[in-house]
Amino acid sequence: MNEILDVIIIGAGSAGLAALREVRKRTQNFVIVNDGPWGTICARVGCMPSKALIEAANAYQRRCTFAEFGIQGADFMTIDIPAVLRRVRRLRDDFVASTVKTTEDLGKRAISGRARLLAPNRVRVNDQELCAQNIIIATGSSPIVPNPWITLGKRIFTTDNLFEQETLPARMAVLGMGPIGVEMAQALSRLGIEIVGFGSNKMIAGLTDPQVNSAAIALLGREFSLNLGEKAELTAVSEGLKVQAGSKEAVIDSVLAALGRRSNIDNLGLETLPVPLDKHGMPPINPSTLQVADLRVFMVGDVNDQAPLLHEAADEGHIAGINATRSEPVCFARRTPLAIVFSDPNVAVVGSRYQELDSTKTLIGEVTFDKQGRARLGQYNQGILRLYAEAESGRLLGAEMCAPAGEHIAHLLALSIDRSLTVGELLRMPFYHPVLEEGLRTALRSLAAQLPAGSGSDLATCGAFNSEALD
Amino acid sequence: MNEILDVIIIGAGSAGLAALREVRKRTQNFVIVNDGPWGTICARVGCMPSKALIEAANAYQRRCTFAEFGIQGADFMTIDIPAVLRRVRRLRDDFVASTVKTTEDLGKRAISGRARLLAPNRVRVNDQELCAQNIIIATGSSPIVPNPWITLGKRIFTTDNLFEQETLPARMAVLGMGPIGVEMAQALSRLGIEIVGFGSNKMIAGLTDPQVNSAAIALLGREFSLNLGEKAELTAVSEGLKVQAGSKEAVIDSVLAALGRRSNIDNLGLETLPVPLDKHGMPPINPSTLQVADLRVFMVGDVNDQAPLLHEAADEGHIAGINATRSEPVCFARRTPLAIVFSDPNVAVVGSRYQELDSTKTLIGEVTFDKQGRARLGQYNQGILRLYAEAESGRLLGAEMCAPAGEHIAHLLALSIDRSLTVGELLRMPFYHPVLEEGLRTALRSLAAQLPAGSGSDLATCGAFNSEALD
Repeated sequence: MNEILDVIIIGAGSAGLAALREVRKRTQNFVIVNDGPWGTICARVGCMPSKALIEAANAYQRRCTFAEFGIQGADFMTIDIPAVLRRVRRLRDDFVASTVKTTEDLGKRAISGRARLLAPNRVRVNDQELCAQNIIIATGSSPIVPNPWITLGKRIFTTDNLFEQETLPARMAVLGMGPIGVEMAQALSRLGIEIVGFGSNKMIAGLTDPQVNSAAIALLGREFSLNLGEKAELTAVSEGLKVQAGSKEAVIDSVLAALGRRSNIDNLGLETLPVPLDKHGMPPINPSTLQVADLRVFMVGDVNDQAPLLHEAADEGHIAGINATRSEPVCFARRTPLAIVFSDPNVAVVGSRYQELDSTKTLIGEVTFDKQGRARLGQYNQGILRLYAEAESGRLLGAEMCAPAGEHIAHLLALSIDRSLTVGELLRMPFYHPVLEEGLRTALRSLAAQLPAGSGSDLATCGAFNSEALD
Repeated sequence: MNEILDVIIIGAGSAGLAALREVRKRTQNFVIVNDGPWGTICARVGCMPSKALIEAANAYQRRCTFAEFGIQGADFMTIDIPAVLRRVRRLRDDFVASTVKTTEDLGKRAISGRARLLAPNRVRVNDQELCAQNIIIATGSSPIVPNPWITLGKRIFTTDNLFEQETLPARMAVLGMGPIGVEMAQALSRLGIEIVGFGSNKMIAGLTDPQVNSAAIALLGREFSLNLGEKAELTAVSEGLKVQAGSKEAVIDSVLAALGRRSNIDNLGLETLPVPLDKHGMPPINPSTLQVADLRVFMVGDVNDQAPLLHEAADEGHIAGINATRSEPVCFARRTPLAIVFSDPNVAVVGSRYQELDSTKTLIGEVTFDKQGRARLGQYNQGILRLYAEAESGRLLGAEMCAPAGEHIAHLLALSIDRSLTVGELLRMPFYHPVLEEGLRTALRSLAAQLPAGSGSDLATCGAFNSEALD
């Protein structure tokens, strides 16, 4: 058949499905192709099963606070790992089912198979050749496992198979202390598994602020052995696997490889596009249109390796879906950066990261939560929040934190940065009592005190009265 | 002595101490007078001890989720009420100590005793007469206990003495289902005390939106007997106390009276001021200056009964402290309204309340949390959030909710309302995944769909492209 489709979407993950939503509003002349099981990374092996595991781990960990609260019986509590994993899969199946529903009614327009580009407007799928005016590539990413480790077989887990296990081994190493490694190492440790964590980088969880990083390392290091700054080597030994990194050596049963994820571009045929590829084999992609150079080809979601986060992947799918059905692609504004690691306390990075800022033009405000009122009442009094503001204008630029309720505070700050709010404007909002946001206010006040217009009061006068006169 | 002071502050609670902070920056010629124990309502008998109790109750309640998570041993857990109360007092003592520290170095300028106005510039304290150019009244409020109940003696608790108990009775009635009643009834019930709650009003927890109110009643009503719409009568019977309200009758051991708080204005001498008093005995008070009519007298905090919340009391103290030390009082803008009830799920009311809105000019967006992704993962999938926006402009006006993480979502909304943000502007912020804020986004999108500029996408284009064309 030589029918020319309007759009081919390759990949039915979060980005591909978002693209589908836009495409089908505007044309019915499309297909969506998916390799392997349908359902998104997020629902199948990513956000959802990991958070289900984390919620169980945190609920169990809370027993450490019971004696202090006046609750008895913590010593009798045990964790049933197979039951935890069964619940994880039960929820996962449900979330996967709801993503699969999106493509169920598509009939022949949903094709199972591996797609390979033949040209900017031609794709081979299952020995069938498809032509289309627009191609959206959304093939996602896969966990990185170094080649030599493949011989170690079933003792190497990734998030692709961790949640499939009936039970978990007694001793595990988590290799890689980025967001996924940190989340999983803490959760597995809280579930009673002896965890040794290794990171080749001295910064963890995507942090760039040395002080927040130190605080996060100190907090996490109380829960499991945390070894940073050296590359880990694995060897099979009679009692299991030996991990060695610098002077640290541990024998464990299994390894969770959390070394990052790589774009699924192998055998995709990107070399058939009339554009140069970089050393990673990636073509140039415009982040505002998601277009590959000036072709009618778009790359969205994890596969483009620009911002491998669900909410960004969804945006990219929408943008490409819109642009693939328009004659002239449109530029879209991208969102204020926001990354959250669901450790406890939460790690979050919002807006401009510490390392991106010009320290000569930036003020830093800070709060620690060890003595914060509400945090003490609830026994979650640990962590730190650092805020960055433009010295000249007082405008909030970014934040890094390892803080209780960090996921919520990060959203409030993301909105503030997105709206270009100043420290003074933020201090005008009500802060209830007793709440963790009062900690945020402390950090804001420490910024306000450094600003030229700083006054001892958060109050705004009505009319022209100058608050500086108050001091 | 006939020295004329610059300022007399009557009351060393949250409002009085905030006033003190401003006054002492500008003059040393002041006194602060306090009747009864030093330390604020908040720290002694209010926010802090109540939240300490609630945190223990919620930690204990979480055991109901354990079996589903895969955690065993919930059946062996017990609560040690005397230990819970000891922790409450230990924390309270610490918070009280830190408030008392504020006045410790004042020497003779801090006077223990009951103050009575003799004129707008004269006060009697302990047979001593003080003259001052400015008087700040911050005498706080006290729990209401109807006169007939006083004969029932120690079986009637208020928050003034509840936390002082060594242990708690097996059966209690909580009378009054406002914010304090709801918080305490749920917490006491979660601590294993058999609770019967009574409210004469059909709306609870300060809510005005009937749908949010219904949801809150349904959720709380699962935990304890909740009886609304009839006035409760108390009588002593042989087995304890009998509470009767309409057809509902219960015999309990003790009662927690949560019928509201009344201003501490008795015997304060307000009638000596040359201004008219209203039927409650209250003089006219300007909320922007906290000034009583045109006198150099200010009334701040709970005593003025305008917004008996800690953060408002603190603001009022600051405003009066500033104005009492200036020749011409200044008007201050007050904050966006925010009230939070620390029930689980949290109840919160932000900005304009449902009942204040003109329904012909207001759009309502809604989300329920029973199927919300993150809420399901953590087993806190219950509750509702309703948002109110101005139909013409899309500007967010207010919200009422009984929702998981409501205290955090309420702060984000308070900031949005304070900054006059529109629904479209809010939808521009990043919403991470999986978070409860995605529930908020659902409610925002339901508003966006009703707005004329509503588009199927939250994305903003760069430049002049019109998003309406996207549909």
